[in-house]
Amino acid sequence: MEKRTEISTLGEFELIEKIKNQASKYRHQQSHVGIGDDAAVLLEENYYKLVSSDWLIEGVHFDLSYMPLMHLGYKLATVNFSDIFAMNGQPRQLLVNIAMSNRFSTEAIDELYAGIFKACQKYHVDVIGGDTSSSAKGLLLSATAIGQVAKNQLSLRSGAKPNDIICVTGDLGAAYLGLQVLEREKQVYLSNPDMQPDISKYSYCIGRQLKPEAQQNSINDLNDIGVVPTSMIDISDGLASEVLHLCKASNVGATIHEEHLPINAEAMETALEFNISPTTCALNGGEDYELLFTVNQEDYEQVKEIPDIHFIGYITNGKPILHTRGGQDVALQAQGWKHF
Amino acid sequence: MEKRTEISTLGEFELIEKIKNQASKYRHQQSHVGIGDDAAVLLEENYYKLVSSDWLIEGVHFDLSYMPLMHLGYKLATVNFSDIFAMNGQPRQLLVNIAMSNRFSTEAIDELYAGIFKACQKYHVDVIGGDTSSSAKGLLLSATAIGQVAKNQLSLRSGAKPNDIICVTGDLGAAYLGLQVLEREKQVYLSNPDMQPDISKYSYCIGRQLKPEAQQNSINDLNDIGVVPTSMIDISDGLASEVLHLCKASNVGATIHEEHLPINAEAMETALEFNISPTTCALNGGEDYELLFTVNQEDYEQVKEIPDIHFIGYITNGKPILHTRGGQDVALQAQGWKHF
Repeated sequence: MEKRTEISTLGEFELIEKIKNQASKYRHQQSHVGIGDDAAVLLEENYYKLVSSDWLIEGVHFDLSYMPLMHLGYKLATVNFSDIFAMNGQPRQLLVNIAMSNRFSTEAIDELYAGIFKACQKYHVDVIGGDTSSSAKGLLLSATAIGQVAKNQLSLRSGAKPNDIICVTGDLGAAYLGLQVLEREKQVYLSNPDMQPDISKYSYCIGRQLKPEAQQNSINDLNDIGVVPTSMIDISDGLASEVLHLCKASNVGATIHEEHLPINAEAMETALEFNISPTTCALNGGEDYELLFTVNQEDYEQVKEIPDIHFIGYITNGKPILHTRGGQDVALQAQGWKHF
Repeated sequence: MEKRTEISTLGEFELIEKIKNQASKYRHQQSHVGIGDDAAVLLEENYYKLVSSDWLIEGVHFDLSYMPLMHLGYKLATVNFSDIFAMNGQPRQLLVNIAMSNRFSTEAIDELYAGIFKACQKYHVDVIGGDTSSSAKGLLLSATAIGQVAKNQLSLRSGAKPNDIICVTGDLGAAYLGLQVLEREKQVYLSNPDMQPDISKYSYCIGRQLKPEAQQNSINDLNDIGVVPTSMIDISDGLASEVLHLCKASNVGATIHEEHLPINAEAMETALEFNISPTTCALNGGEDYELLFTVNQEDYEQVKEIPDIHFIGYITNGKPILHTRGGQDVALQAQGWKHF
């Protein structure tokens, strides 16, 4: 009998690691950084070209019963731009692959594209290609963002050094809580379709889930003050998972201070209502599309002038640790999104 | 009631046309050629960068009951490379997006990647990124190929001029016939699983369907003799469809001579066995992944020295026409793949 190993025993990150090991040893000098960062890096004459590709699959990444198609298109674009910003670059072009079953009308596709074009307008990106197809089931989306960064401004996951300050943009955990609210209201609706849900008190969390923005402003602000993060990654799978990625790639440890985790007030209340720890939401919630980055200590005075950047800890020579409000040090653990 | 237009009333090409019109007016000078050619073209310092993305979706583009995963991986890579060759360029990098349900084991994914890496080795391409995910159903693949071409060697769909000679590489229709054989054998197997099919007499057609190659040799040969096609497109949806694309993009007509359509002997026999016209297979079969291109008449003497290039007609000021063996001129019509 042939050997069969369930993908669930391996997990997404191990799978990527395995592919990465097979793919390395590049044939072209131009293939500068491959699998294992937010975007691939191509060596060009005067800058680095950045390329990144992401899935959005119905039934896995989104539920059309509460995700409007225009928001979905917007999200498809912004989550791909986020990977380019995470390299300290600027997105320029987008390729969009759409496959859908015949339950979708051309009006539905127009909605979806309206969202994509809206995001492209906001982030100053051109839609230059892609592929359309039918699908056997559901709506399948993948997109490829192309961007660039000056050669002296590239931020990889691998550049963090001990004593670097760990920063995050914006706030964490709200997108996950928005998803919990939407899932709950869907169940309520399914059991009683006449019930009108009042979701206005969750508008921030829901907005974070349905229409995430990418952190162009923070990248521009850092650029304006001339600070290049020593390492950077976007927060798509939850802060804890991303800190572990940075630490592994940089071969360092980190201490994250629970009390410094930025959590929005509405998210805090919603977490308590759902009886989930706000810290857990911030660490493992996912889909925040904020940036996690490290800066040299000497850049601190400048970076703290930028609005909406939070200092949550330090890079160390030790292990990745969470320093709790209670004063305990516990190992940082990633739950991430277990797709498999 | 909201308006609902079925996608089937629009068709894939009209859908692409609609998106293209919305996407045009590019923000970046670098976005040189966008939607509407085999690959997008980015203006770089010393060359053009080429980017193209393609779907392969289970139940739409392939059937795992007769498509081995290693061949599928190989095909995913080569169909993407084919788009780069169709711009007269060379592929350099590949991003691979894979989403699969939990019915797939890690060994299955290894098989798939083995095929991808095999194609990358043959065509000298680096796998530099992508995204992995679970799927709600089936195996979903999309890939993005990146390549480049010297600025004076780019071939677009839009450059054909009256009197240019229309050329195709290789032969046409066999991949479609391979699919017919595989479908028939599947039905035989389903009705009687003990029956061992003898498919050896269809080995060429089946190979064309299961393991298509991309036409790097022809591109290299043209490059060696210093001939740049005035226009080019890869034959994925069938010759007729691609001739119409070239004519539309170049604002010209074409006369294709039925007697000059290159059809392999095994394909010819198989077509007759299936009671399909070999010409129909060549014109509308699809998935040949050969190249259709035009050259200036003065290049004829040189191009005819290249093996495996066939001259099938001329570009005209009229309409796209098939000149039949019987001497009649009939309007060329595309069936293409109606995905929707």
